[in-house]
Amino acid sequence: MVQRYIHNPIIRPQDVKPSRPDFEVICVFNAGVAKLGDEVILLLRIAERPINQNSDIHIAPVYDVEKAAIIKKSFNTDEPGCDFSDSRWIRTPSTNYITSISHLRVARSRDGINFEIEETPSVSPANIYEVYGIEDARITSIDNTFYISYSAISDLGITSYLASTKDFIKFQRHGVIFHPDNKDVEIFPEKINGRYYALNRPSMSHFGKMDIWISESPDLISWGNHRHLAGAREGYWDNGRIGGSAVPFRVKEGWLEIYHGATKDDKYCLGAMLLDPEQPWKVIARSEKPIMEPVEDYEINGFFGNVIFTCGVIYENDVVKVYYGAADTHMCYAEIPIEDIMTSLGLK
Amino acid sequence: MVQRYIHNPIIRPQDVKPSRPDFEVICVFNAGVAKLGDEVILLLRIAERPINQNSDIHIAPVYDVEKAAIIKKSFNTDEPGCDFSDSRWIRTPSTNYITSISHLRVARSRDGINFEIEETPSVSPANIYEVYGIEDARITSIDNTFYISYSAISDLGITSYLASTKDFIKFQRHGVIFHPDNKDVEIFPEKINGRYYALNRPSMSHFGKMDIWISESPDLISWGNHRHLAGAREGYWDNGRIGGSAVPFRVKEGWLEIYHGATKDDKYCLGAMLLDPEQPWKVIARSEKPIMEPVEDYEINGFFGNVIFTCGVIYENDVVKVYYGAADTHMCYAEIPIEDIMTSLGLK
Repeated sequence: MVQRYIHNPIIRPQDVKPSRPDFEVICVFNAGVAKLGDEVILLLRIAERPINQNSDIHIAPVYDVEKAAIIKKSFNTDEPGCDFSDSRWIRTPSTNYITSISHLRVARSRDGINFEIEETPSVSPANIYEVYGIEDARITSIDNTFYISYSAISDLGITSYLASTKDFIKFQRHGVIFHPDNKDVEIFPEKINGRYYALNRPSMSHFGKMDIWISESPDLISWGNHRHLAGAREGYWDNGRIGGSAVPFRVKEGWLEIYHGATKDDKYCLGAMLLDPEQPWKVIARSEKPIMEPVEDYEINGFFGNVIFTCGVIYENDVVKVYYGAADTHMCYAEIPIEDIMTSLGLK
Repeated sequence: MVQRYIHNPIIRPQDVKPSRPDFEVICVFNAGVAKLGDEVILLLRIAERPINQNSDIHIAPVYDVEKAAIIKKSFNTDEPGCDFSDSRWIRTPSTNYITSISHLRVARSRDGINFEIEETPSVSPANIYEVYGIEDARITSIDNTFYISYSAISDLGITSYLASTKDFIKFQRHGVIFHPDNKDVEIFPEKINGRYYALNRPSMSHFGKMDIWISESPDLISWGNHRHLAGAREGYWDNGRIGGSAVPFRVKEGWLEIYHGATKDDKYCLGAMLLDPEQPWKVIARSEKPIMEPVEDYEINGFFGNVIFTCGVIYENDVVKVYYGAADTHMCYAEIPIEDIMTSLGLK
């Protein structure tokens, strides 16, 4: 049974210091998760927006590559051809903007519940692929290096970018590893028969649905032999779209992936998928029902309600420790015995 | 000045034997180009559709993976929720179909003009990524092997697939090299500072335009470090969308790419781009005006009119020999002196 932490959320927007005085933090969610020594590290996604007390204008925060800084682009409410009807977006005749911008920030904890959040961003938008922000980090530990894949959003599309760190203090960038559109990249923690593998979620314009694919690499930078792994399922809790969520981890029976699925009306739940240990492009089993779905008030109400979304878990002592974004607003914590997940897969 | 062959088109649909008696060839176009010994090889894209004399039904040809054959899916004209208004498509509530299906077929010539076309397909749809057909081959010769990238179309999206051959008789498949959506993949004919490069054209759902990207690979299978190379240009002949067309070839000043650009109302022309010889992700020069645009009747009228589209050229004796699809219907031939292209780039 899922055990939610009784004092959820564990991190709220008001717990986070804005990156500058004219911005406010509106969401802290979808953190990458790692263990470094005896600490739990969260690489939080922090979404900020410019404080705006003038109802005549809408503001889009955008990273300006030449100025190497986030600038505020203002639009009058009566700007011709612009659509401000959804507060998350500004749609203009030439391109779309987002009304918030995300960066990644480290938080540390010894007990896995109480986190010390850094006062400044750890990884911020820094190039043409990131002008609308960086989002939803996944962390994979390989040979004493932490590889971080995150979504880089810009007017060039949604790409997946790779960075790495050894200490969560200094970070190194390695470029775009999946061309647009692609997000939800989870790199497996070890080579399988000499190749790295990663789950990923392309999205398409003409044919195709938002499904999970799996790709191979010799070097973590170049990816190929892309294969369709699993799709949304008509008549199920994941009938709208699916994507990988947590970095896969090894269990006796194979690779366990905690993924997210949405209904057609955007209720986001978590499910599990068991992948073949040697041929991870083969799905052995998949949850008929979600292993976690939004039920608590803090999961149902928020910036974007009815959402449970994880970017990482810790698996130890037969328990899956889930760090998750709830309602796209705050970070929460829950524990699920591995046995319950295996049961949900029909394997116990 | 562009010298079109006086008896264009050089290959017409009626010159091609259908792959089966109940199909008709409607288009032969967008051929990959190679030289093998003293022969010019075209790897033609041949689009066929089921012969249909029953106006009450619409038919979509689809490769059936289990049957390992192309089957005909029939729809009644009064099928609820279906849209048959564009004769190229069948749109149903669950997915979209194409009313034709393409395969690749070898044609050989000693003079580069008169081609002997094989009687049967050389590469046909054969897996889940190809159920709607395979299209628009580009051929790159590396170390006595011809690498063929082509678009694989299916209900999973538009991917780029890699195959290879040494003789254009036996072909080997190597998997999906660019996840959906991506097409127009041109692999450079040699490594640059130890890395392979390829142009490609992702298309996106949320942000971004249909632009040319450049990617790197250690092994031709896995691709990464994706970079945005060049975009459509407002106010120019290529203001709608662009994509790589011919496999880039080396000139004294760098890498010359003949690319295609479309206006917003779908007039497809060819232009040139000069890329840095050592850093091919840098554009040195780009055609202000098209080097070739549809003017002849056979370029203006056809299955999809106002289109000139090349997938390969031969560069020899200071002349660029362009094999191109015209009006998405037939194969044509033209010669352009390299000097004229360099002049169009402002470099002569």
